[in-house]
Formats: sequence, structure tokens, C-alpha cells
Amino acid sequence: MMRLEEVKKKANAARAAAGVLSLASTVQKNRFLRALARRLPKETSSLLAANKRDLRQARRAGLSRVLLERLSLTPERIRQMVRGVEDVVRLPDPIGELIREEKRPNGLLIRKVRVPLGTVGIIYESRPNVTIDSAILCLKAGNSVVLRGGSEAIHSNKALVEVLKKALREAGLPQASVQFIDSTDRKAVAELLRQDDSLDVIIPRGSQKLIEYIRKNSAVPVIAHGEGNCHVYVDDSADLAGAEEIVFNAKVQRPSVCNAAEKLLVHRAIAARFLPRVALRLRHAHVELRGDADTRRILDGVVPASEEDWMKEYLDLILAIKIVDGVGEAISHINTYGSHHSDAIVTRSKEHGERFLREVDSAAVYVNASTRFTDGYEFGLGAEIGISTQKLHARGPMGLEELTSVKYVVRGTGQVRS
Amino acid sequence: MMRLEEVKKKANAARAAAGVLSLASTVQKNRFLRALARRLPKETSSLLAANKRDLRQARRAGLSRVLLERLSLTPERIRQMVRGVEDVVRLPDPIGELIREEKRPNGLLIRKVRVPLGTVGIIYESRPNVTIDSAILCLKAGNSVVLRGGSEAIHSNKALVEVLKKALREAGLPQASVQFIDSTDRKAVAELLRQDDSLDVIIPRGSQKLIEYIRKNSAVPVIAHGEGNCHVYVDDSADLAGAEEIVFNAKVQRPSVCNAAEKLLVHRAIAARFLPRVALRLRHAHVELRGDADTRRILDGVVPASEEDWMKEYLDLILAIKIVDGVGEAISHINTYGSHHSDAIVTRSKEHGERFLREVDSAAVYVNASTRFTDGYEFGLGAEIGISTQKLHARGPMGLEELTSVKYVVRGTGQVRS
Repeated sequence: MMRLEEVKKKANAARAAAGVLSLASTVQKNRFLRALARRLPKETSSLLAANKRDLRQARRAGLSRVLLERLSLTPERIRQMVRGVEDVVRLPDPIGELIREEKRPNGLLIRKVRVPLGTVGIIYESRPNVTIDSAILCLKAGNSVVLRGGSEAIHSNKALVEVLKKALREAGLPQASVQFIDSTDRKAVAELLRQDDSLDVIIPRGSQKLIEYIRKNSAVPVIAHGEGNCHVYVDDSADLAGAEEIVFNAKVQRPSVCNAAEKLLVHRAIAARFLPRVALRLRHAHVELRGDADTRRILDGVVPASEEDWMKEYLDLILAIKIVDGVGEAISHINTYGSHHSDAIVTRSKEHGERFLREVDSAAVYVNASTRFTDGYEFGLGAEIGISTQKLHARGPMGLEELTSVKYVVRGTGQVRS
Repeated sequence: MMRLEEVKKKANAARAAAGVLSLASTVQKNRFLRALARRLPKETSSLLAANKRDLRQARRAGLSRVLLERLSLTPERIRQMVRGVEDVVRLPDPIGELIREEKRPNGLLIRKVRVPLGTVGIIYESRPNVTIDSAILCLKAGNSVVLRGGSEAIHSNKALVEVLKKALREAGLPQASVQFIDSTDRKAVAELLRQDDSLDVIIPRGSQKLIEYIRKNSAVPVIAHGEGNCHVYVDDSADLAGAEEIVFNAKVQRPSVCNAAEKLLVHRAIAARFLPRVALRLRHAHVELRGDADTRRILDGVVPASEEDWMKEYLDLILAIKIVDGVGEAISHINTYGSHHSDAIVTRSKEHGERFLREVDSAAVYVNASTRFTDGYEFGLGAEIGISTQKLHARGPMGLEELTSVKYVVRGTGQVRS
């Protein structure tokens, strides 16, 4: 009972801090970031000790090797965090940016300027680096933040939040700017979703199940970072050697992330030539192949793909293959079964490429490149808080700008409306 | 039971039409708008006949004179609709706009371009012109639309939707682009809120109660057009004659709309001089005055304002007055009790004006002008679908641009991620 009241109290405290943060200067926000970059390495041993407690519990709870790997902090990962903080220091402050300016015939000077969103709730799982990554981007954009990490990383996250608070104090910013919900009770999430008086947005990062639950139950607006059921379509006119590189990279380079390819669509005319070579290479990298009947006529040992397969995000070394009659069928398959995240065509036909880019309704569409590039750093945003799969407010990689809102500032000389 | 399935069917049909609309050219979309502008005047008599049925039912149901007035169509109001349609023809098409372009060091050409939102749900009350205004803006921005108007305007809305469909057919666009939920059952709204597979956003326009209900219950992202509890603060340095004009205009010119002022804050130092003159004029215009104890010491016959008054949107000829000690107290009162819609300061102090503009956390902040200017036309957006009071996606007047999303279009030459 007390814990739920605690959630409301923390959200309110973050709301109050947002007023101060929204007026903080770039210098002051960067002072916080620099203090954080200095403090993190010094706190390495206490951070690793906290992380050890999480790892011990996780091993006891029987977490998979992949999850243990995601959970673990190392000196190198702390150095990575510091580099991330230093990157954000260098990013231009989006707050105060003049977006549009117009002098109206009646003499009113109307400016649309960039302001912080206010208070951002982040609900995430396992990886403790998300605690630092989310907080620094939110704070640089002048927002306060309420963090709710996964229960498996609770000690690591608490230790990281302590470092954040020390850096805030050092910079003369309210420590209440970062709130951490330390209850591992699921009800705490439900309570957070009800704080529409104090939270301006909730960003869920994690499993599709978590995101679905939040989307359906939140009174606070949500920016969903949904799944990536990404496709590579190899056109009949594709350079097959290049296509092989792209398919291999999109599937194998880092299969556990949302921009990895899960589906391969191949034009019928080149399937018999292309599939055996790419299959050999994929299988060499331990990729399980699933496929439609046409694919299974060309390749041996392919698991039959079910209707469900076409909609699935594996996040694993699995690839489902379908043979299609052309770019039109590829587009309609992607728009029907895909998750509107990242999809690529490999082609030498300008016409097919342009049609694919225009008609595929995804956050990122590619011609002749791997889907793995959908990422704030790769897109030149400098950093990212995640990848939005919805169309409202932000779509694709979310950087600093996507953590802001706008305000109309109107200067008059006594104008009234007639 | 059948009716609820009907809602899902219509949302799905709109979703399918969105694919076609997203690829429609500006010429084709304007062909639709011109056909609509031609057809509306021709259909005047049938539109008025349908409206008469609504008015008859509304009178029988005992609707207030204000609501009957909002509900009624006249030849002049139809001409206004036509002018609105012609305005939207002239607005530049936002779709395809290049927002950002970057050539990355690895040779990838990354473009961020403007695309339609997809399928927009609009839930609104009484005024039938909203049917046309919403549909034309959504369609010009390449979106399909699912409309759910108030039950009191059902015949008028159905007749208007018929004209929209004829104009779509004439332009060779799918008639399914406009869907109208003709069930007056409240459950139809609840069902619409569950269509997150086919709707990209729901825009509620109407009472605060309706908006609250939708926000709490929608699985579809919502852009709330909430209430306007707008303030005018008259500073000690204000030009009092100018202040009087602004207060009078903000309160009286059109009291039933969201950008009308509901609260007057007055600096203590000028209250005894300013309040009697402005009160005389307001009362002459039949404005009921409420006030705090300090105000009631200066003005006779003022109703005591309760705590609830400070939070209320009257949408009526009522004004609550509070005396404050300075710009700081005014700002904190507005940020605490206001609805973050539109707030103004009247001052000759540059310092106070700038502080107010910076620190008041509202969609539109004014110095020396009436709050009544918060409007898509007045702000130069050309048209508006409403005024967003949330910070996510759109804040303040929403025009064509706010009815769009973005897409990253990436062109490569075989790039893979290392």
C-alpha cells in the first residue's frame, strides 16, 4: 500500500523538478553531464559490487545466458557509459530552438519554440546502461525522469541512480530530477500508468508483452518502442553477391536487436540461384532456416514456416524465407505481416527501389543496405533513447529532439480579436 | 452486437484506404476538394432538410438555445464550409516534404521525409461543420478518417458524409477514405477506442468529460483537445487602457470557446485603480464577476471565488478575479491552476514580459495581446483541426503538418554494419 503512494509521490516530485529543469541553461545541464562522466569511473567498484548482487540473484533464478550477459556490468561497459555521457555533452541543446517565426498582418509576432516535454516515465527491462542512457538524454532536453527498471537489475540501477543524483547536486540541479521506482512489485507499474497529472509521456522499452500491456492500460500518453519484424527483399535484378552480404549482416551481425532481419523475401526468378549460396553461409553461422513450400523445394532441411512465423520477431538466429513474384508482392507482404520498423530491398532497378521506398509503410525503408543501420548514432542523431514504432510524435530512432515539445510565444502591442 | 462489428469493419476499411491515399498526388487530393466545394452548395437543400430533422429532435429533447445554435446549418454556414474547403485547396501539401537529409561517412544517404499519419479517428460533438473541417484536413494530409459525431447531429452528419463520398468518387479516390460511425450507441465509441490495429490516432473534440473518458480508455494514441482555463495577468506596469481592452476582448468577444479568458489576475499595486473601470465595462456586457477576498474589498457585489473556481473553464460570461503580489505569483498561480492552453500578461516591463513568456508552461503564451488569437488561422497555419493541450506530437493549434508523421528513407550501395 505504502509503495503505491510512493509512486505518486515520486512522480509529483519529478513534476516539480521539471519546472526548474525547463529553465536550466545549457551550461548547467552540461555541468551535470561532466560531473557524471567524472564520477562514473570513480564509482566502478561500488557499481560492480551492486551488479554482482543482481547477477547472483539472476543465476539463482535461472536466467538464460543471454539475459545474464545483458545484465552484467564490466569496467569496459562503464567506460562505454562515460563515452555516451561525453557524446551527449557535445550534442547541441535543442531547448529554445526557434522552429518558426511569423509576423502577422495585425502586428503579432508569433514564434514557435522548442521546450522540454516535462516529465518522462521510462519503463524498461534488464540492461542497466539504459538507466544512464535514458536519464542523460531526458535531462539534456530539460526533462525530469521517472525510471522503472527491471527487478533483475534493481541493485545496479539503484547504484547508478545514486551517481546521477550526486552529479545533479554537484551541478546545482534538483536531485528530484531523477526518480527511481525501487519497488519490484508489478503494481508499481500500473500505478505509474495512472500518473497522468504529473507525467507527460511514458516510454516503454522491452518485450512486446510489456509494451502491449502499457499501451492498453496507460492514462499517460505512450511512445511505444515495439518489436522489429524486419524484412530483406532480394529483387530479381539484385547484385547477388551484395544481396548475400546484406542478408547475412542483417540477420547475423547482432540477432538479438530490433533492427535485425527476421524474414527474407526472394524473387522467384533468382531463388534457385540465390538461396543455396546464402543458405550455406547462414547455416555456417548457425542460423535456423524456415520457409514456405517453394523455398523447401529449393533448399533441404528447411523447417516449414507457419502463418505465425510471418508475424514473428525471433530476436534469435532464425530466418524465415518466402519466395515472391515481384516487388509488389514483397511490399504487400511486408505491409501486412511486418511491424513497420525497418525493411530493405536489394535491387539494381531504380524503379523497383523507388516503389519499395514509397510504398513500404515502415519507420525506416532501405534500398541496398542492411536494416541494422536503424539507430540514433548511425542516423546521425548523436544518441538515441530507443526506436519508436508508432507514428505519433516520434517515428524511428528517438534522439534529443524527440524528447521535446513546442510552445507558441506571441508578442503583441495591445492586439485584440475582432 | 452487429453494430460493434460494424465499427471494426469500418476502421479496417479506412485502414485499407489509407494505403491508397498515402500515395495520392496533390493534384488528385485537390481534385477531391474542388469537387466537394462544387457539390456542397448544390446540396444545400438536402443538407438543410437533414439538419431540420436534427433540430426537431433536439428541440424535443430540450437542448439549450446555445446548443441548438451550434447545431443549426444555414446557407451562410454552408458557404463558410465551402470557403474552408477552398482554403485547404490552397494550402501546400505537406506530404513528401524533405525534413532532413544527411550523407553519412559510410555513404548512406538518409532522408527524413513527411508521410501521412495513416488513419485518424475523430470523436466530436454537436457542430456539423466539424465533419467537413476534419475530413478535408485529414484527406489533404493523405489520411483516411473515421468520424464519430454527436448523436444530436446524426442526420446532418450523414448527409455531409454522403457529399464527401461523392466528391471522393469524382476524384477517383476510395470512398472508404471517409468512414462514419452512424450508431448513436455510446458503446460504439468504446469499440472505436479498441481499434489500435487500424487507427493511428484518435482526436477527441468536445467536453472535458468526453476527453477524459477517451484518454483513460483508448488503446489508440490520443491527441487531447482539452479545456482552456486561460488567464490574463495585468502587471503593475501595464498600460491600463490597453489592459482593459485585452481583458474585455479575451472574456467577452466569444465566451464559449476554449481560448477565451476565464481568470483575471491583477497586480496589487494597480488593483484599486484598474478593477473598478474594467468591472464596470464587463458588467455592462453581463459578465458575472467572482473574486478572492482582496478583490471583494475593492469591488461590490462580487461572488466569492472558491478553490474550484480557479481550476474551472466556464465557457460562459463569468470571470474570476484574483489579486497577486507580482509576476512571480501570477506565473505560479497559472502553472498550478491553469490548463496550459493560452495565458497572457499585460505589461510595459520587458523583464516581466520575458519572464512570463519563459516560465508559463502553456501551449500559447502572450505579452500584450488577447488570448483569443490561439487559432490555426490567426497563427498562420491556414486551417486547424483543433487545439492540442498535450505536449506529445502537437501542442497548440493543429494544422496539416500536425496530421502527418515521418519516415526515414535510406539509400545505400551495399552497406552493411560492422
